[in-house]
Amino acid sequence: MSNAEGLRGQTAGQTALCTVGKTGSGLTYRGYDIEDLAAHAEFEEVAFLLLKGYLPNRGELGAFKARLRANRGLPAALRIVLEQIPASAHPMDVLRTGCSMLGNLETEHRFSEQQDAAERLLALLPSMICYWYRYAHDGERIDTALDDDSLGGHFLHMLRGSVPPALDVKVMHCSLVLYAEHEFNASTFSARVCASTLTDLHSAVTAAIGTLRGPLHGGANEAAMAMMEQWSSPDEAEAALLDMMARKEKVMGFGHAVYTTKDPRNAIIKPWAKQLGEAVGDRVLYPVSERVEEVMWREKKLFANADFYHASAYHFMGIPTKLFTPIFVLSRVTGWTAHIMEQRAHNRIIRPNADYVGPPHQDWLPIDKR
Amino acid sequence: MSNAEGLRGQTAGQTALCTVGKTGSGLTYRGYDIEDLAAHAEFEEVAFLLLKGYLPNRGELGAFKARLRANRGLPAALRIVLEQIPASAHPMDVLRTGCSMLGNLETEHRFSEQQDAAERLLALLPSMICYWYRYAHDGERIDTALDDDSLGGHFLHMLRGSVPPALDVKVMHCSLVLYAEHEFNASTFSARVCASTLTDLHSAVTAAIGTLRGPLHGGANEAAMAMMEQWSSPDEAEAALLDMMARKEKVMGFGHAVYTTKDPRNAIIKPWAKQLGEAVGDRVLYPVSERVEEVMWREKKLFANADFYHASAYHFMGIPTKLFTPIFVLSRVTGWTAHIMEQRAHNRIIRPNADYVGPPHQDWLPIDKR
Repeated sequence: MSNAEGLRGQTAGQTALCTVGKTGSGLTYRGYDIEDLAAHAEFEEVAFLLLKGYLPNRGELGAFKARLRANRGLPAALRIVLEQIPASAHPMDVLRTGCSMLGNLETEHRFSEQQDAAERLLALLPSMICYWYRYAHDGERIDTALDDDSLGGHFLHMLRGSVPPALDVKVMHCSLVLYAEHEFNASTFSARVCASTLTDLHSAVTAAIGTLRGPLHGGANEAAMAMMEQWSSPDEAEAALLDMMARKEKVMGFGHAVYTTKDPRNAIIKPWAKQLGEAVGDRVLYPVSERVEEVMWREKKLFANADFYHASAYHFMGIPTKLFTPIFVLSRVTGWTAHIMEQRAHNRIIRPNADYVGPPHQDWLPIDKR
Repeated sequence: MSNAEGLRGQTAGQTALCTVGKTGSGLTYRGYDIEDLAAHAEFEEVAFLLLKGYLPNRGELGAFKARLRANRGLPAALRIVLEQIPASAHPMDVLRTGCSMLGNLETEHRFSEQQDAAERLLALLPSMICYWYRYAHDGERIDTALDDDSLGGHFLHMLRGSVPPALDVKVMHCSLVLYAEHEFNASTFSARVCASTLTDLHSAVTAAIGTLRGPLHGGANEAAMAMMEQWSSPDEAEAALLDMMARKEKVMGFGHAVYTTKDPRNAIIKPWAKQLGEAVGDRVLYPVSERVEEVMWREKKLFANADFYHASAYHFMGIPTKLFTPIFVLSRVTGWTAHIMEQRAHNRIIRPNADYVGPPHQDWLPIDKR
């Protein structure tokens, strides 16, 4: 495999949106440290920062949130489409299809519509996933046009059918802030390649959802959850984990392609997972998670990444494991659409070269001589 | 704009599928010259060559075509989805959504299913576009499970409601062969970025369709047709064209990002356009096309590319202009899926770097101080 594979270490363009592992703090959105954003900002403030380029004042934030609230209703044709998707489907396929279908019903005809199209998607993706989930699993056609203050609260409200506790909403803010943006990761790069032909916003986000779906990208928190659910105590977890290492099995939720010493998002989500565990009276999953983190560091010097404690945090909020990766979409759509707009503003079609490693010239051979 | 923009001239990986502009003949699929393939092969032979790696013998080709024929029926849930899409939708959005929806109904769970999934898509994309087109425009629910021998014939049969003449089927073969594969163009690269997270085949093809939709990639033959339809004689065309040049307007269907002296596909499709024009008694569009080609070469030294005479060829076959780019999909899905399989066989996640050009570190500012 040549160095060109994966474009590792090659620069594919410019961005003003994000740094990953470049400053001491590790992760910044438009110059702001992730620690500050996660500690102080609502998710909608961060979404505004990514989409519009600066932190909103109170009036701007209020107007932005009001627009998002007004955009939560699903078009009838989209509801019918979601009702055709079986409960056994991969939830990322549901979001990919919902986003693509929306592009038929509310096509972005001109780039001047991009901010509206991005806000509509941001508001509507939670409605899509919850409408499908509740219809496919419970046979219920839920009303998605609810008036929850925040996107995270709206999501939990639709999913559970009741207004969520304040703690859960706060953790959803934090989680959505942590996942909102991460430079030229594969799904974002896929959105930019797509956008570079000057196609519409829905095509580019649809491409990104399908890319995030892959097990090498999204899905680590789901895999971490599936692993830890098997264990009923820290000691059992440690024994099983050592066995896995002996068999050279990959443990999901550890290490990172870009960060080398720690993932700055882990220290932020971990205390919230602990607090949620205490709130629901957990005595297993959080202690198991801590032990797994200890063992991985002790044995492999591998650090927990953003995904690891998200597994227990989401689980304590009653979110079904198969909806973990879709939450990533609900957040990252802000980063994707901001990158699409950035690509459009300084566009050149992304068309690299390939090294040819195939057969030399072949003479034509009529079918009866083959 | 830095050199990194667009990855122009940078190598992003290896392929054994295609060379563009590297040999005297200009374009090869797995070592075979495009001239040989277009002159001698059915489209299904070329699809087999791309997907399986070699030219089929008579038995293999027969079995391959039989499988494609058996795969033409649309699942009921997919028909319902297509019926929700209005006639005003962009036909590429229809194919993107149809492909994505199929991923919910017939999910590719393991890579061992990739050949079957690729064949199913190849057989079913023509059914999707024609079913939608005829339902949205004529209110007719057509039967797509017809027994036409070839994919091109099947497409024309569904679209028109009658078995097409042999000449039209032959030109469809040629056209589909010419569009089947073209190395790391933007839509193929998008499919490979998506596939590099080890996601499913439907996600990667969905990404490619949305990428091809952009006016910098697909759509040149539609734009050429829209331009030429305005003119009723070669002299009128020449005068209008000189006016366009004086206003520095871009003329679609000329020049190419990779080819510098000619597009080898133009010499192949042009005589077919002429023959079809004669068959339908045309006295305007073909002569106009020839004049446009002459003037562009005389005035700008720009050569007609593959798209230019496709406009008149498709028009003479009675294909509505807005379905020109979807035909590109029906053919290129072979190249896309072959690239997806190649990416999977030697995979590394495609995750380039970005140059950061954004603001430096920003101190957090509480909302009431903004």
